[in-house]
Amino acid sequence: MSQNSTKSVNHHQLRKLLLQILPADSILYQQEDLRPYECDALSVYRQVPLIVALPDSSKQVQNIIRLCNKINLPVVARGAGTGLSGGALPCEHGLLLSLAKLKNIISINEKLRTACVQPGVRNLAISQAVEHLGLFYAPDPSSQIACTIGGNVAENSGGVHCLKYGLTVHNIQQIKMVSIEGELITIGGDGLDCAGYDLLALMTGSEGMLGIIVEVTVKLLPKPECVQTLLAAFNDISKAGTAVANIISAGIIPAGLEMMDKLALQAAEDFVHAGYPTEAAAILLCELDGSEIEVTTHTNAVCELLNNSGATEVRIAQDAQQGLIFWKGRKAAFPAIGRLSPDYYCMDGTIPRKSLATVLQAMADMSQQYGLAIANVFHAGDGNLHPLILYDANIPGELTRAEEFGAKILELCIKVGGTITGEHGVGMEKLDQMCVQFKTNELTQFHAVKAAFDPKALLNPGKAVPALHRCAEFGAMHVHHGKLPHPELERF
Amino acid sequence: MSQNSTKSVNHHQLRKLLLQILPADSILYQQEDLRPYECDALSVYRQVPLIVALPDSSKQVQNIIRLCNKINLPVVARGAGTGLSGGALPCEHGLLLSLAKLKNIISINEKLRTACVQPGVRNLAISQAVEHLGLFYAPDPSSQIACTIGGNVAENSGGVHCLKYGLTVHNIQQIKMVSIEGELITIGGDGLDCAGYDLLALMTGSEGMLGIIVEVTVKLLPKPECVQTLLAAFNDISKAGTAVANIISAGIIPAGLEMMDKLALQAAEDFVHAGYPTEAAAILLCELDGSEIEVTTHTNAVCELLNNSGATEVRIAQDAQQGLIFWKGRKAAFPAIGRLSPDYYCMDGTIPRKSLATVLQAMADMSQQYGLAIANVFHAGDGNLHPLILYDANIPGELTRAEEFGAKILELCIKVGGTITGEHGVGMEKLDQMCVQFKTNELTQFHAVKAAFDPKALLNPGKAVPALHRCAEFGAMHVHHGKLPHPELERF
Repeated sequence: MSQNSTKSVNHHQLRKLLLQILPADSILYQQEDLRPYECDALSVYRQVPLIVALPDSSKQVQNIIRLCNKINLPVVARGAGTGLSGGALPCEHGLLLSLAKLKNIISINEKLRTACVQPGVRNLAISQAVEHLGLFYAPDPSSQIACTIGGNVAENSGGVHCLKYGLTVHNIQQIKMVSIEGELITIGGDGLDCAGYDLLALMTGSEGMLGIIVEVTVKLLPKPECVQTLLAAFNDISKAGTAVANIISAGIIPAGLEMMDKLALQAAEDFVHAGYPTEAAAILLCELDGSEIEVTTHTNAVCELLNNSGATEVRIAQDAQQGLIFWKGRKAAFPAIGRLSPDYYCMDGTIPRKSLATVLQAMADMSQQYGLAIANVFHAGDGNLHPLILYDANIPGELTRAEEFGAKILELCIKVGGTITGEHGVGMEKLDQMCVQFKTNELTQFHAVKAAFDPKALLNPGKAVPALHRCAEFGAMHVHHGKLPHPELERF
Repeated sequence: MSQNSTKSVNHHQLRKLLLQILPADSILYQQEDLRPYECDALSVYRQVPLIVALPDSSKQVQNIIRLCNKINLPVVARGAGTGLSGGALPCEHGLLLSLAKLKNIISINEKLRTACVQPGVRNLAISQAVEHLGLFYAPDPSSQIACTIGGNVAENSGGVHCLKYGLTVHNIQQIKMVSIEGELITIGGDGLDCAGYDLLALMTGSEGMLGIIVEVTVKLLPKPECVQTLLAAFNDISKAGTAVANIISAGIIPAGLEMMDKLALQAAEDFVHAGYPTEAAAILLCELDGSEIEVTTHTNAVCELLNNSGATEVRIAQDAQQGLIFWKGRKAAFPAIGRLSPDYYCMDGTIPRKSLATVLQAMADMSQQYGLAIANVFHAGDGNLHPLILYDANIPGELTRAEEFGAKILELCIKVGGTITGEHGVGMEKLDQMCVQFKTNELTQFHAVKAAFDPKALLNPGKAVPALHRCAEFGAMHVHHGKLPHPELERF
């Protein structure tokens, strides 16, 4: 509905209006300045915005949003642009709202163990700012050096340590957001719970569709006294899957429990020489933390569980240095795989842990069928898969095949009771899979919630929740007669 | 808006309509049958409904809601009626929807560690049903023998063990709800996270205002290998508060950490003879669980922390039997206090832990000022207060004074950064305090969310979120000129 009215605004007129709110150097409108904002880290979708605004205060954000609401101009909020699902893709006739200048740590409360920060503060910068207090901020997406907390809240980001410490939603206490009317709304508080509807959880993971986050109060945790890292090798990937289930079943929640398959661990080894057992079909990296005695006890228990689950080798890091080397390959896995292939497509889906072995086997079969290699590096402990599909965009048809393969993997996640996103969000990328995961009743309720915040659909339009007609069209092709899109998934 | 149309329906006409959906014995309409539904456990508010419906299937719930929606009849859902904030108070011209007959455990999945249950299943019945698998359901409100899981989700119930294991929202994975249109909506899944807006969290604690819960999939946890209970006595309640902060600061999260003040512990001792040190100003009960070695280590550490915090005595339960005796007085505290006074008013607010000592002192001062005794029995570890104000309803003015005192306590919770409810919900009781905790912007957003689910406001009307005009009236009396309702709170 906003399109008609906005197409008539050009960037000159818009710039004039914005100049009443922002200094000239906080408004970008020339093609060469707009270009860096044309995509996030998922570069298959590209679009330059009409204009970019770079506010440096909540007040400016409020005024920009009031303007956009008044002239029906779509607004896409952007953090560091490290997102992997195209959630920050600009609108052609819209404003790109960069929150990069809102980068102050407002306050740190040691007693309450909280930090109040602006949305443009980098994830890792929070932990660095409280390190001297023996505290840290737990969620640690791979992009934590660069990604910002506003984007983390918008995507409900995870990371290696989410198995034990929870997702972003479990690690924040309060946010301030600007509503589409430009009002400042405070959600949450210092207490454990808050009265009223749980808007804090609702906003977390809402992908910029409900409001603009301008302040986040995060919870801080005491740094564990002791950390131990184990590496286990398996000659069969399904045995590694079973080991994961056995560790969790024993009531042990590691700080991190990651799996790498043969292709991933070989690529990482070639790249950073971490000393990985390259003949293995898969390795598990397990980090245990807590008090010294807790870690010692758990280390012994996990070793026994790994051996009983069929590990061909279990290594215990002899010191912190060796622990870091074990992790080095995991952390370098994505660039390492980038060396194997001109392009790769990183998927993100979550499945119940018990289905790990089945799903890994099915992906291997599909890899054969599509003629595209797949590498797996993922958060095994919480069932959050990150298959990387290798392809070459210069070979005609490979990108399309990779996308199809990726879609199939997500549908497989749904089939086994999981979900199409673990931590990357839906964005532009997974709109069709939302049609598979949710029925009309649920999608209708999502749209009603959206309308309760943003009745004119100006905030990040076209992302995260597909329009019902899109699903109808997608459904007409794929899920007709109540069948799953891909009959071969029926066997799971 | 619904009132005009519904006043014209009498219970005879309504019964006739309901007979097309339910058998005759599932519809109650005679005064003596309606009477048991006139209040929940907060009996100061009473109202018999027009009619009571007792469906025994989701399908029947859907049909009842469709009928109510069609004829604009208000609907109040009711679980076991153990709520303490008047959340299940019926509407005079409305239908009371009892979910008591939906009491089947649908399935238990040992591998996924989940149980799928109907809303009328009692909280404790879930743990009993999975005990043979070594599993349990963690949230344990005091009413767990009687209260049902549907009500637990509606109120986001807590309990002694929520400090370590989280509130209801952290312990459920999926719900099925009936929307006001009578549609069945599935929210959540078997995975750790779910795509789309977090409607699972939004529904949890929504007090029957957004939809009718007809199925809940709860998470189950492995029963801890070992449990240890400690009892510590203090000659000063603020030292007990400091001890709580010191334990949590040391990175130890007990399974439960409860405080009882002098009046509460003396009443409990007189009642059940648990051997409590009745000369103490306060006691702490601390439950530690985990592996044997973990519990041993933490027991030693907590003992040292308690002693360093000024405990006059620390007792360690020598066996499970003694542990149960330590808890016996805590569990009997409410009825024990009932023996001291003809009536008591149990409040529920949550504060940041660091404010425990200040708030306890302020409540003692207010107790003097109001001439009403106060007993404190509460979840100290998570800052969830349960002050019990003692009064005699037969003495003119005492009930009003008790309610005023209670309201002041809640406003004090807000003042120190906390919230007006920990686990009891807002219901009818705390509508005015919602006006203190939230500004117009937040309340407006709450109403917009409500309208996204229930545009005609038929679901539990008048509860949980106050109308803006109510706050304006309340505010006109209390918060004029931006001042807090009670100037004496300014000092916190």
